[in-house]
Amino acid sequence: MVAEPGERSQAVKLADIYRAAARIFHQQGYHATSISQVAEAVHLTKAGLYYYIQGKQELLFGIMSYAMDLLEEQVVAKTRGVVDPGQRLHDIVAGHASLIVRDSSFLTILVNELEGLDPEHRPRMVRRQRAYVDLIRDTLAELQRNGKLSGIDPTIGAFGLLGMILWISRWYRPNGRIRSERVVETITKMALAAVGCPAPAATR
Amino acid sequence: MVAEPGERSQAVKLADIYRAAARIFHQQGYHATSISQVAEAVHLTKAGLYYYIQGKQELLFGIMSYAMDLLEEQVVAKTRGVVDPGQRLHDIVAGHASLIVRDSSFLTILVNELEGLDPEHRPRMVRRQRAYVDLIRDTLAELQRNGKLSGIDPTIGAFGLLGMILWISRWYRPNGRIRSERVVETITKMALAAVGCPAPAATR
Repeated sequence: MVAEPGERSQAVKLADIYRAAARIFHQQGYHATSISQVAEAVHLTKAGLYYYIQGKQELLFGIMSYAMDLLEEQVVAKTRGVVDPGQRLHDIVAGHASLIVRDSSFLTILVNELEGLDPEHRPRMVRRQRAYVDLIRDTLAELQRNGKLSGIDPTIGAFGLLGMILWISRWYRPNGRIRSERVVETITKMALAAVGCPAPAATR
Repeated sequence: MVAEPGERSQAVKLADIYRAAARIFHQQGYHATSISQVAEAVHLTKAGLYYYIQGKQELLFGIMSYAMDLLEEQVVAKTRGVVDPGQRLHDIVAGHASLIVRDSSFLTILVNELEGLDPEHRPRMVRRQRAYVDLIRDTLAELQRNGKLSGIDPTIGAFGLLGMILWISRWYRPNGRIRSERVVETITKMALAAVGCPAPAATR
């Protein structure tokens, strides 16, 4: 499916706006950021920005939906066909961590600004996020049925691993001492070891 | 050292204000919460609240300092004398996780609202938080010198474990299906296994 030229350019522009806005929201917080500051960051007038978005609330939901799309396309969809649960867990953690080191402010907004969503948008986002948590939890439950995961509740396990992954955006600095590949590799290794399942990572 | 009766009662009142304010900031975000809402939550008039605090900014710093005091007194101070680094790591993770399940909104504010602090207060809080990260990192580095921690950078390791611990406040519900003891026990077990050091937890 190829989009119309005009349509495609608007989608690209919108993605740019989402990324820039995510960066400011990440730095200053959603509530503390004005639409004027977002407009300035994307080199548009406030009126120009309103051509692409309806308001700050819709902008936040747009960013979150786009980030969730990315996570689903680049992590969830790719791991769906992986039969071995240990390998699937490895791919989920490595995939998600890779997305975060690539563009942390974008992914972080998914979890940090959920309270900023209004009553109409919030349940829709929560539902998509729950499905992702369920994917990790189900993978851990499958490992448990295979005799792994000694004594770890799959729910606590899933949230424990998610914390490890999501926290990356709070401490990792793209131009710092630690290389991004090393972060992804180490966090993945730690995550698999945490649930007593280090095999697939070691064989790769 | 026994405080004067009046003084002591003010300290207790202030601690109550910190806890109530932390709860609202946690629910709504610091920026979205007004001083009037804080006053209402602690059953004071706005003028009455200003008897105890100087402003919203000082209130935030007060809460964070108090939470950091708790962490230092109840976790850091207790683990300082633990010679075995594996046991020390166990006690840090279990202690910090216990504090969070006991009063999550209070501890969460330490990490979630750092951006809300002004240029005078922020570096002071960052310094205290860094000292805590250093404690975990140094403990991991000691394990590494003892031949453990295979291939894990102590800095990435420290932040990985911190993510696991701090994230608890985002998903754990005090009256939910999962008991708090189970959360602390599982997260501690996962944390030690993550850095290839499961021994001390298993022997206790």
